[in-house]
Amino acid sequence: MINKLVVIGVGLIGGSFALALKRAGLVGEVVGVGRSAENLQRALQLKVIDTACQDAGQAVVGADYVFIATPVGQMPEVMQAIAPNLSATAIITDGGSTKRDVVALYRRHLAAHLPRCVPAHPIAGSDLSGAAAARYGLYEGKQVVLTPLPETSAEALATVRQLWEAGGASLSTLSPDAHDSVFASVSHLPHLLAFAYMNTVLAKPDAPHCLALAGSGFRDFTRIAGSHPEMWRDIALTNRELLLQDLARFQEEIAKLVADLREADGEALLDAFSAASAARVAWQKGK
Amino acid sequence: MINKLVVIGVGLIGGSFALALKRAGLVGEVVGVGRSAENLQRALQLKVIDTACQDAGQAVVGADYVFIATPVGQMPEVMQAIAPNLSATAIITDGGSTKRDVVALYRRHLAAHLPRCVPAHPIAGSDLSGAAAARYGLYEGKQVVLTPLPETSAEALATVRQLWEAGGASLSTLSPDAHDSVFASVSHLPHLLAFAYMNTVLAKPDAPHCLALAGSGFRDFTRIAGSHPEMWRDIALTNRELLLQDLARFQEEIAKLVADLREADGEALLDAFSAASAARVAWQKGK
Repeated sequence: MINKLVVIGVGLIGGSFALALKRAGLVGEVVGVGRSAENLQRALQLKVIDTACQDAGQAVVGADYVFIATPVGQMPEVMQAIAPNLSATAIITDGGSTKRDVVALYRRHLAAHLPRCVPAHPIAGSDLSGAAAARYGLYEGKQVVLTPLPETSAEALATVRQLWEAGGASLSTLSPDAHDSVFASVSHLPHLLAFAYMNTVLAKPDAPHCLALAGSGFRDFTRIAGSHPEMWRDIALTNRELLLQDLARFQEEIAKLVADLREADGEALLDAFSAASAARVAWQKGK
Repeated sequence: MINKLVVIGVGLIGGSFALALKRAGLVGEVVGVGRSAENLQRALQLKVIDTACQDAGQAVVGADYVFIATPVGQMPEVMQAIAPNLSATAIITDGGSTKRDVVALYRRHLAAHLPRCVPAHPIAGSDLSGAAAARYGLYEGKQVVLTPLPETSAEALATVRQLWEAGGASLSTLSPDAHDSVFASVSHLPHLLAFAYMNTVLAKPDAPHCLALAGSGFRDFTRIAGSHPEMWRDIALTNRELLLQDLARFQEEIAKLVADLREADGEALLDAFSAASAARVAWQKGK
C-alpha cells in the first residue's frame, strides 16, 4: 500500500499506472506533476490524479513512491529537483524507454538513494500522449522490464514488481545493456523507419493521391509514425550507438533487396520474404 | 444479377467478393477455381463457392462474370486457359495489386474480349490468405481502384462498379501508370521494408530476446511481414522499376537520418520526426 504516490509526467504511462493502483486499492493520494498546467487540469478532471503540482521538488515531500514518467530528456532536471526532498524510505522508479542512460542519471543525481532506485520500462508505448491517453487496464498482459542497479535493495525491487503485477503486467529483468540492445531493435529502429517511410511518401509528387488511397497495410505500418516527436528525438539520441548499428544492418538488408530486385532475382526475393513471413507468423502464434 | 460467377483463386479477395454478392442476392451460382483441391474443398464447406473446378477453361463455359483473383504471376496461364471458352458477353475482371502488367496481359491474352475486360484492384489486402480467410463484409468501407482500358465498354465498367458498391466499397478510377506509382509507395514499399526489417531482427545474436519482448509497436509495424511470400515476390518483380525508385528515395531518407544521428543533431531529427508525425496524425483524422 502506497500512501503518497507522486507521478511526474502525467501521460499515457504515468497516468495509467496511477489508475491501475487506484483500481487495485493500493494507493492513498496520487500527486501529479507536470510542466503543462492544462494537462494537469485534465488529469484532475479525469480523476487520474488527486492533486496537481508544478514543482517536482515540493511534490515529493513525504512521498513513499515516486514514478518519473517523463521523456528521458527531462529526467536530469526532475532528478535534480527531487533529490534534496526525498525521504529515506521513498522508492524512486521511472518509465524511460532507454536504460543505460537512465541508470547513469540515477547514479549522478540520486547517489544517496541508490538502494531505493528501481529503473523500469513498461512496454506499453502508443502514438497517444497526454493525460487524456491514460486508461484503466493499459498494463494488463503487457510486459515491464526492470533493470535494477547492483545497489537496489531486494525490498524496493519487490515493491515495484508487486505494483506492476497488480496492474496486470508480466515482469522480467535485464541488464541495462541487454535492454537497450533489444529495444533499439524492436522499438527504436521501427519508429525511425516509420518516420523515414512517412517522409518518403510525403516527398513524392503524387503524395496526396498516395495518402487518399492508402489502406490497412499502410495504416498499421505507419501507426508508430504518429508518435511524440520530442520523445523519439530523445530516445534516438540516447540510444544512438546501438541504433546506428541496427540502422547499418537494416541498410545492408535493403541494399540486398535492391540488388535482387535490380537483377529480377525472384528466387532470392522469395527466400528473403519467406524467412521474414515465417518468423512473423510464428511470432504472432506465440503471443 | 450475375447468373454464373467464376472466381479463379478462392482466397481472401476472391472468396470475400463471392460472399458479398451472395449476401446482396446478386449471384446465382458461384464456381470456384484453384490449383489446390484442399482449398477448394474448404471453400465448399464454408459455402464461399457452390461448385469447385480445377480447370479454369472448363469453368468459364457459360459464365457471365469471371473474377481472376490469383496472384498476378498466375494470370498469364489463367487468361490463356479461359480465352477460348469465354462467351461474348462475359465480363472479365481481376484483383491484381499491379495494373500496368495486368493491362498488358489482357491485351496479349484476351485481345478479342477487351470491351468486356475491367482491370481492378480492391484495397483490402491482408496477411491472411486461402479460402478460410474469406469473409462477409471485407469490402465495406474499402476502396476499389479501376483502371479501365480505352476499349472497355461503359456497360461492363458500370456492372463491375455496381457489384463492388453492392459489397460496400468506394470506387475510383486511375490510369495504370498512376495506380502503380501510388501502390509502389503505399503498399509495395512498406511490405518490402517490413520483410527487410524482420530479417534484420532475425539476424541479430539476441533475436530470441528481441522477439520475446517486442510489443504493440513491433506488432503493427510488422503485421504485413506475415504476408504471402510468393504473391509479394510477384508484385515486387512486376512493379520493380517504380519500387526501385521508391527504395532509392527511402534509402536517401535513411542516409539523412543516419547522418543526423551520427552528428547527434537533435534539431534535424526533431524536424524529420515532427513532419512525419503531423502528417500521420492528419491522415488518421481524415479516415
